[in-house]
Amino acid sequence: MSTSNLSIAAAPITHDIEFRVRYAETDQMGVVYHTNYLVWCEMGRTDFIRARGMSYAEMERAGVGLAVSELSARFHAAARYDDMIRVRTTLVDLKSRSITFDYLITRAETGTRLVSARTALVSLDSSGRSIALPSSVRGLFKAG
Amino acid sequence: MSTSNLSIAAAPITHDIEFRVRYAETDQMGVVYHTNYLVWCEMGRTDFIRARGMSYAEMERAGVGLAVSELSARFHAAARYDDMIRVRTTLVDLKSRSITFDYLITRAETGTRLVSARTALVSLDSSGRSIALPSSVRGLFKAG
Amino acid sequence: MSTSNLSIAAAPITHDIEFRVRYAETDQMGVVYHTNYLVWCEMGRTDFIRARGMSYAEMERAGVGLAVSELSARFHAAARYDDMIRVRTTLVDLKSRSITFDYLITRAETGTRLVSARTALVSLDSSGRSIALPSSVRGLFKAG
Amino acid sequence: MSTSNLSIAAAPITHDIEFRVRYAETDQMGVVYHTNYLVWCEMGRTDFIRARGMSYAEMERAGVGLAVSELSARFHAAARYDDMIRVRTTLVDLKSRSITFDYLITRAETGTRLVSARTALVSLDSSGRSIALPSSVRGLFKAG
Repeated sequence: MSTSNLSIAAAPITHDIEFRVRYAETDQMGVVYHTNYLVWCEMGRTDFIRARGMSYAEMERAGVGLAVSELSARFHAAARYDDMIRVRTTLVDLKSRSITFDYLITRAETGTRLVSARTALVSLDSSGRSIALPSSVRGLFKAG
Repeated sequence: MSTSNLSIAAAPITHDIEFRVRYAETDQMGVVYHTNYLVWCEMGRTDFIRARGMSYAEMERAGVGLAVSELSARFHAAARYDDMIRVRTTLVDLKSRSITFDYLITRAETGTRLVSARTALVSLDSSGRSIALPSSVRGLFKAG
Repeated sequence: MSTSNLSIAAAPITHDIEFRVRYAETDQMGVVYHTNYLVWCEMGRTDFIRARGMSYAEMERAGVGLAVSELSARFHAAARYDDMIRVRTTLVDLKSRSITFDYLITRAETGTRLVSARTALVSLDSSGRSIALPSSVRGLFKAG
Repeated sequence: MSTSNLSIAAAPITHDIEFRVRYAETDQMGVVYHTNYLVWCEMGRTDFIRARGMSYAEMERAGVGLAVSELSARFHAAARYDDMIRVRTTLVDLKSRSITFDYLITRAETGTRLVSARTALVSLDSSGRSIALPSSVRGLFKAG
């Protein structure tokens, strides 16, 4: 996955979260059901945003939502119930109306790579119409 | 589970739905994850309401929501992936501000009893405040 | 909810966990979808078990599962996206083949009571047959 | 999304399913939570397989699982609670160890395009090791 239009920072901005796999997240194959990794990606990016100084809940109350417009993922190895998981979220692109994040999901204790993913998000107003990202939100993603 | 205040009909009003278990609904025990049966109960009651002449989506657009206030369930046997499931929903109580439904979840092909459950729901306005059920909604649940 | 057969301890054994509400856990009413509180109860009891010295994952590898046989819940107030949640799990009954836990789910910052619930669990072998709880597992739940 | 190695049929093999959006599938944005579209894709492909003459449940009992190895999706418009949804699944590639499906998710009544997606699946034995697709399974996907 190549990165384009990276006007935001020389050094990548990343953010890590860790948590345990819930029983509810497994399926009868004995591993995590595949769409749950994408829920974890969302947890990674919302915590990324909080760490930059604004919670996604505040963004929504201010009338700006972020909706996934594109998503891709590769599944390398399976997570299991009770594993400690690390999601590393990296901002890879910021445009006037969209933000792109990469995710690397690993088993925290061993570093085993489980899933790599990318999502593009577009900003919407409270009626679901595409809008430019407000400067207050864009400012969160500047380097430093 | 006993029934009180049943002022609505001599014969119980029931409604059946059938569907297949999704893979996503299983867990690593090889059976359906237990909270999914309660999602099925909700499918049963919203389809019950639709069959009476109004969709729950219309109710919400008219400013009336139904929120679960109490719930109980007994788990008799486990559903498995790809099973055909039947949910029988029965209206057991209707008050000015609440509705109570019973559910019997069975394996459709064998009739095996899987889960019996009951939920009480209260009516809320769009700000989440308790309100009396509008007569248009109450009318849906009269016998006949 | 009354407690019977409480042969385990004079002082109740409780365990707390805290976590944030995920976006995926909300529904279009703008609050947490009701069955997710029951997923949180499971997180509470598995972390309770881990805190007593054995993970539920280890129990399963040793051939013992716990399946919910009965469940009841009262919904007092709604949790919202990004709320910090506390689940207090209390062991209320221990029999040869079953364990009963109570749960009190609150908003961590304010202490607001959201949901109170109870589950009874039965012990199963790896083929899903009811078995007596092994003494190694029963020992986890003794007071002290 | 281009298709390679299409050795299976001149005319594409497709299969449609229809169902209603569940309340549990919405989030507080008032639309379907994005990962649920990918659960629907899985429903599409398992029903595709059933329509070809073998249920995925039978495949698993015969010791062959299919695990998602790659996934991509574009989100064009949002589904809402109670919408009738159509998922059209198309087999686009069949190799010795993998199968690729495309999905087009539309609102059934209007034909509005909601999501287009693709998944590659690899065949695994019951211990999770990659294996060649058995000929009995490959045979399901031949044209005609």
